[in-house]
Amino acid sequence: MADPKSGKKPQKLKARLPRGLADRGPAEIAATRDMVEKIRVVFERYGFEPVETPAIEYTDALGKFLPDQDRPNEGVFSFHDDDEQWLSLRYDLTAPLARYVAENYQNLALPYRSYRHGYVYRNEKPGPGRYRQFMQFDADTVGAPTMAADAEMCMLAADTMEALGIKRGDYVVRVNTRKILDGAMEALGITSSNQKLAVLRSIDKLDRLGVSAVRQLLGKGRKDESGDVTPGAELSAEQIERLEILYDIREEGRRDFFMFMRTHELLEDDLILQPDSPSSVGQSVVGNPRFLDLYLEKFGDCQTFREGVEELHEINRLVRSAKYGTKRIRIDLSVVRGLEYYTGPVYEVELTFETKDDKGRPIRFGSVGGGGRYDGLVSRFMGQPVPATGFSIGVSRLQAALTALGKSGTKKQAGPVLVTVFGAEIAGQQKFVAMLRNADIRAELYLGNPKHGIGQQLKYADRRGSPCAVIQGPDEKAKHEVIVRDLIAGAAPSETADRDAHLKKQAEAQTAVPENELVETVRKLLARHGLAN
Amino acid sequence: MADPKSGKKPQKLKARLPRGLADRGPAEIAATRDMVEKIRVVFERYGFEPVETPAIEYTDALGKFLPDQDRPNEGVFSFHDDDEQWLSLRYDLTAPLARYVAENYQNLALPYRSYRHGYVYRNEKPGPGRYRQFMQFDADTVGAPTMAADAEMCMLAADTMEALGIKRGDYVVRVNTRKILDGAMEALGITSSNQKLAVLRSIDKLDRLGVSAVRQLLGKGRKDESGDVTPGAELSAEQIERLEILYDIREEGRRDFFMFMRTHELLEDDLILQPDSPSSVGQSVVGNPRFLDLYLEKFGDCQTFREGVEELHEINRLVRSAKYGTKRIRIDLSVVRGLEYYTGPVYEVELTFETKDDKGRPIRFGSVGGGGRYDGLVSRFMGQPVPATGFSIGVSRLQAALTALGKSGTKKQAGPVLVTVFGAEIAGQQKFVAMLRNADIRAELYLGNPKHGIGQQLKYADRRGSPCAVIQGPDEKAKHEVIVRDLIAGAAPSETADRDAHLKKQAEAQTAVPENELVETVRKLLARHGLAN
Repeated sequence: MADPKSGKKPQKLKARLPRGLADRGPAEIAATRDMVEKIRVVFERYGFEPVETPAIEYTDALGKFLPDQDRPNEGVFSFHDDDEQWLSLRYDLTAPLARYVAENYQNLALPYRSYRHGYVYRNEKPGPGRYRQFMQFDADTVGAPTMAADAEMCMLAADTMEALGIKRGDYVVRVNTRKILDGAMEALGITSSNQKLAVLRSIDKLDRLGVSAVRQLLGKGRKDESGDVTPGAELSAEQIERLEILYDIREEGRRDFFMFMRTHELLEDDLILQPDSPSSVGQSVVGNPRFLDLYLEKFGDCQTFREGVEELHEINRLVRSAKYGTKRIRIDLSVVRGLEYYTGPVYEVELTFETKDDKGRPIRFGSVGGGGRYDGLVSRFMGQPVPATGFSIGVSRLQAALTALGKSGTKKQAGPVLVTVFGAEIAGQQKFVAMLRNADIRAELYLGNPKHGIGQQLKYADRRGSPCAVIQGPDEKAKHEVIVRDLIAGAAPSETADRDAHLKKQAEAQTAVPENELVETVRKLLARHGLAN
Repeated sequence: MADPKSGKKPQKLKARLPRGLADRGPAEIAATRDMVEKIRVVFERYGFEPVETPAIEYTDALGKFLPDQDRPNEGVFSFHDDDEQWLSLRYDLTAPLARYVAENYQNLALPYRSYRHGYVYRNEKPGPGRYRQFMQFDADTVGAPTMAADAEMCMLAADTMEALGIKRGDYVVRVNTRKILDGAMEALGITSSNQKLAVLRSIDKLDRLGVSAVRQLLGKGRKDESGDVTPGAELSAEQIERLEILYDIREEGRRDFFMFMRTHELLEDDLILQPDSPSSVGQSVVGNPRFLDLYLEKFGDCQTFREGVEELHEINRLVRSAKYGTKRIRIDLSVVRGLEYYTGPVYEVELTFETKDDKGRPIRFGSVGGGGRYDGLVSRFMGQPVPATGFSIGVSRLQAALTALGKSGTKKQAGPVLVTVFGAEIAGQQKFVAMLRNADIRAELYLGNPKHGIGQQLKYADRRGSPCAVIQGPDEKAKHEVIVRDLIAGAAPSETADRDAHLKKQAEAQTAVPENELVETVRKLLARHGLAN
């Protein structure tokens, strides 16, 4: 780009987008609309009401609660306002909600249950599937101190996945609490907030980087393939050892943790409750994640840890009583969530199925949403405690997964009826377009170069997916007629040996009708092909 | 705000939004959704297909096409990317579309007809009804050289207004072309591009500032009430005089222009074509804005001006042949449009009715959308001519107008059913919420302080607009019953003298039913009050 100060302009501008940003076409837009609508229905059913905040906020109101950022303001797009105050693009929908609630606290019915969706912006290094603008859909309950609000978020997450067509078993909501993590660190004598954050972020990378990398990150640090060095949390070998008991990362990571639990008959996978199997209702649905009590032996001398265990027992009890089994919602101590502001339960929705990419390689989508309790975020503005908890769906990420699953409603719509033109005299043709549109039929005039012949115009109609073309040459005009040409029947390839039948079909594909029968003729043609107006 | 470098934090953050930005509540959000959907239906009917670009672009790709800005990059929010290139938030949806088309030119079926909506950002001084983030909804046709594309935009604008419930006669689409303006300036010997821009911007302020202010702006400049000085276009007295003939701003501004036209029987207001009055079809619908020819006497020696007159005649002919009369679409030489990038026809949709503000003062909404031909905007990237034209609706502005008209679908939705709680034992209550939600009934558990009594909980239900509350105390629990309390019937004020009837109604408002009849009971209650699930 030319230096704006030198005033020199390049001869021809390059049309390109900044990295990590993308344009979206009709299929993707339709799929998002469909998803957003389905999510909205579930969130409304849970009693949440919509609220929307702008994309720009004061930087200080957003706070420094960015994932994986050690320097202030890194990770957000920031700029000066004309009064020299710092503004930023929102990086999530939670921090702006906290600002909104604090600003309108006196006028809100508490607990305040709200939802919203929109784009958020991260000034980060983009990568495959990692964008700098993406859509989130959030629900939050502010002013709700009990675990019932967190349990509800987990159930909301599960219901939303199923409303989007993701089968039970293809996703799981995993729940943990920061108090388990904080308690364990307390018990290990990890007290500096920087070190604590480094531990959280290391463990959060278990899924992505694997066990040995996380072990390095908990210790002295790690050099990645590109040679970049990430400083470690500087834990001692003994501290790492004790943490590893908690997360069972000694062998092959988190999956082994599940294996371990299963071997010890601590998970209740056989207690899956299907709404259509009334037999399960009689069972003891209030499960008990007994493995938690095993850990109490290790860290139970810590009050915070014990509170954490209590929180998880309570959430477990609430979701089981609402008949959500462990196939849907599961206690899992490896859940961290990168954001610093969580203070209690944290949850993550993970897609558990595998699919193949373009080259047939298996891909897992992993986390498509999550959230947690952030009791401090509203309080910052208020000078009084304001408990809150929320859940966020990564719409863009989930949409990629749904597309891979073939569940995103991306059907190709039929194109508009094309009214062709003959030379510059198009006022008459414009009239036909208006007639069709007034009858709610999607239609357009050919607006390309007026010198283009009928062949070029029909080629355009083909690219547009037009079901038919309307043609009026001078001969038809003299007779006040129009030709309606069926481009679907006409285009049908002669697959059958019965050539006569096909020729007959092609002949039928073109009809001359009086001008005033145009709308009726097109309407019948659309109906014949099973197309809506 | 604390200096981020000094690391000092204020004791308590202030929760506030930057000026010119606003939060939006349920009614407003629902109204926008409704509007966007209606606009989308019309745009689709015209054969446009959706495409979406991100909010952030390279500053140079957006160009310096800002309204009312003399300094480059003023008016947009801009910031450096990590590679030191300048990024900006889009200030409209047209410049990003031009970038998109240039980037994807080889893969698009031309003419490329697309639509999109989204927020745009202006780094301007906010004022009443003037925001720094607002929504636009655009349609554009790229690769269409003829006036048919522009005529179509005008008809699209008219159809959209009516789809939104604005009556014919309450809006008008006014059409002009830059070639008239450019031609007149050419004839007056105004050649410097800065001076031309100053003239355009002055005339564009006719509506807002009135005649004498515009006369000052065309001449030496103007000092406004705040004392700010706007430099003038520095035209000579004779040049101003000749321009005034064109815009008829000698007396009292644009309205007089219409009066003048009407007196001279040049407007065709009696040629209003209603779709339901077939008698008008027989008339000569191809109108002729004869007043244009009068101006040819003044400026007809200029080729550009003559082309402009031809363009307007052609658009007029096309819209009349599609039976759009002058009540809907009108040639009007006072239309300018502030943006520099227009090269041919420009159009503006104006709401013509008056309404009252909160204090009973009359307000006119004026322009709620517009657009024009921008043949140069895509070409900048391409090194070849790419004709294009587009139309943009100011959704936020139009929504304010529709709300004032009482036409924005802002009905208040019924709140969720509230399931009340008794103390800390809420697992059973959670079960009732799940039962209701599984039956697609909007429901929520009371998530406030568990110590709150039933009175406080019902007060919350009232604020939420809940149709009923579900209550299960220890007595009911023992009997496996729940109380369903009708909050609508129960709340009905005793307006009637028939006190007995009201008491009876209140008693009826509360029923104890077996737990397993809860869903059915609530469903009947909702139906009784005419509420959907």
